[in-house]
Amino acid sequence: MTDDRVWTAALVVIGDEILSGRTQDKNVAQVAEWLNQHGIRLAEVRIVPDEIGRIAETVNELRAAHDYLFTTGGIGPTHDDITVDAMAEAFGVPVVVHPAARRILEDYYRDRPGGLTEARLRMARVPDGAELIHDERLGFPTILCENVYILPGIPEILEQKFQALRDRFAVSPYFLRIVYTREGEGAIAEHLNATLAAFPELLLGSYPKIGDPEYAVKLTLESKDEGYVERALAHLLGLLPEEAVARTE
Amino acid sequence: MTDDRVWTAALVVIGDEILSGRTQDKNVAQVAEWLNQHGIRLAEVRIVPDEIGRIAETVNELRAAHDYLFTTGGIGPTHDDITVDAMAEAFGVPVVVHPAARRILEDYYRDRPGGLTEARLRMARVPDGAELIHDERLGFPTILCENVYILPGIPEILEQKFQALRDRFAVSPYFLRIVYTREGEGAIAEHLNATLAAFPELLLGSYPKIGDPEYAVKLTLESKDEGYVERALAHLLGLLPEEAVARTE
Repeated sequence: MTDDRVWTAALVVIGDEILSGRTQDKNVAQVAEWLNQHGIRLAEVRIVPDEIGRIAETVNELRAAHDYLFTTGGIGPTHDDITVDAMAEAFGVPVVVHPAARRILEDYYRDRPGGLTEARLRMARVPDGAELIHDERLGFPTILCENVYILPGIPEILEQKFQALRDRFAVSPYFLRIVYTREGEGAIAEHLNATLAAFPELLLGSYPKIGDPEYAVKLTLESKDEGYVERALAHLLGLLPEEAVARTE
Repeated sequence: MTDDRVWTAALVVIGDEILSGRTQDKNVAQVAEWLNQHGIRLAEVRIVPDEIGRIAETVNELRAAHDYLFTTGGIGPTHDDITVDAMAEAFGVPVVVHPAARRILEDYYRDRPGGLTEARLRMARVPDGAELIHDERLGFPTILCENVYILPGIPEILEQKFQALRDRFAVSPYFLRIVYTREGEGAIAEHLNATLAAFPELLLGSYPKIGDPEYAVKLTLESKDEGYVERALAHLLGLLPEEAVARTE
């Protein structure tokens, strides 16, 4: 992974519970932040229902368009956990029980109530040809199909998976500076435009906050080139009236 | 709107700030819950970057596939507020200043500091042919292009827009019952499958919770037919061991 090439990823969140509004999604922010820390741009997210055909179609569209694709959700033992089946359909391969995954489940459930039921054994199913990424200290393996990482939807377990995957993603982070302004967007827009004209490669975000006594707009300045961000920041601060700036970070 | 036809909607969240992980999205849950209350299924969500071409392409794909399309974000006065331009590109029409929207802005900014700047006037721009949905008690109008509603990304303002739109969406809600179980998914999966076999139209969700002393799995049973949900619930409770059920709602 080199510093100047922009690596992009997409995320497919599999979850009827999110589309119905019953559950507030946390995976998007979690995956986005983790990717950003590793210098990978999250280029698109799709939240799709628990339907094999829709998931497979979405996976095929996005895995071709990006360097990496991540999916979250749908990998437990119940009827609505159909991510592995959808992935097998996407890759045109059968679902098989992975011997190593089966062994891990057998060991885990040997002395636990209920034992290794048929339902629990579902978790050893993988699309044929999938790779298992396993770190013994970090729970059940992650399934990798070419450039597609199949991740769990439960935030606590997802966090563990990131630990197990960290060595696969070299770090090339974005540098971020933040300006909080007391003036609203309408008053500062011309200075933002002027800064972008002078620093066309800058990633400049503008996020108004309502009812906050401390600031009216949060401005984010980003680039993989730290010096570029600093020069753009200095340019912007030179344009903004002094009293308009609440603080910088 | 009749009760038996399933109306579907899609949502496009326009937001670099969400894809970068800087901001936790709240719009998905907000829109999903609101639609669900009105008996409309949210069938898909896409989170896309602030790029006119990508937004236009996504809008055209989704507005054809669903009864309604909603977009959130990108309608303020700054350089990264490009939703109206993207929508005009999607519909193949020019961007125009809407006279009624301009009048509302002129009235609003007449006695306010800074007045109606060029940047603020950007908010009166609409795709040519767009309809304005205006409720004087509820702030700035909502822009409607055929079946596409252009909504703001700021949660507090989005909530106001829902108020202004409520009369357009007749109510045909889903009925929801909830079962909290003490047993994990592996232990109850067979009973869920049996219930689905007997009630194939039931929308049945299964959501494990980790580290909660009260329950291990939350099961959601949904249908537009209240009696159907109640019968499916009775069926499931008849299958689950009594001690496995923590409570129902």
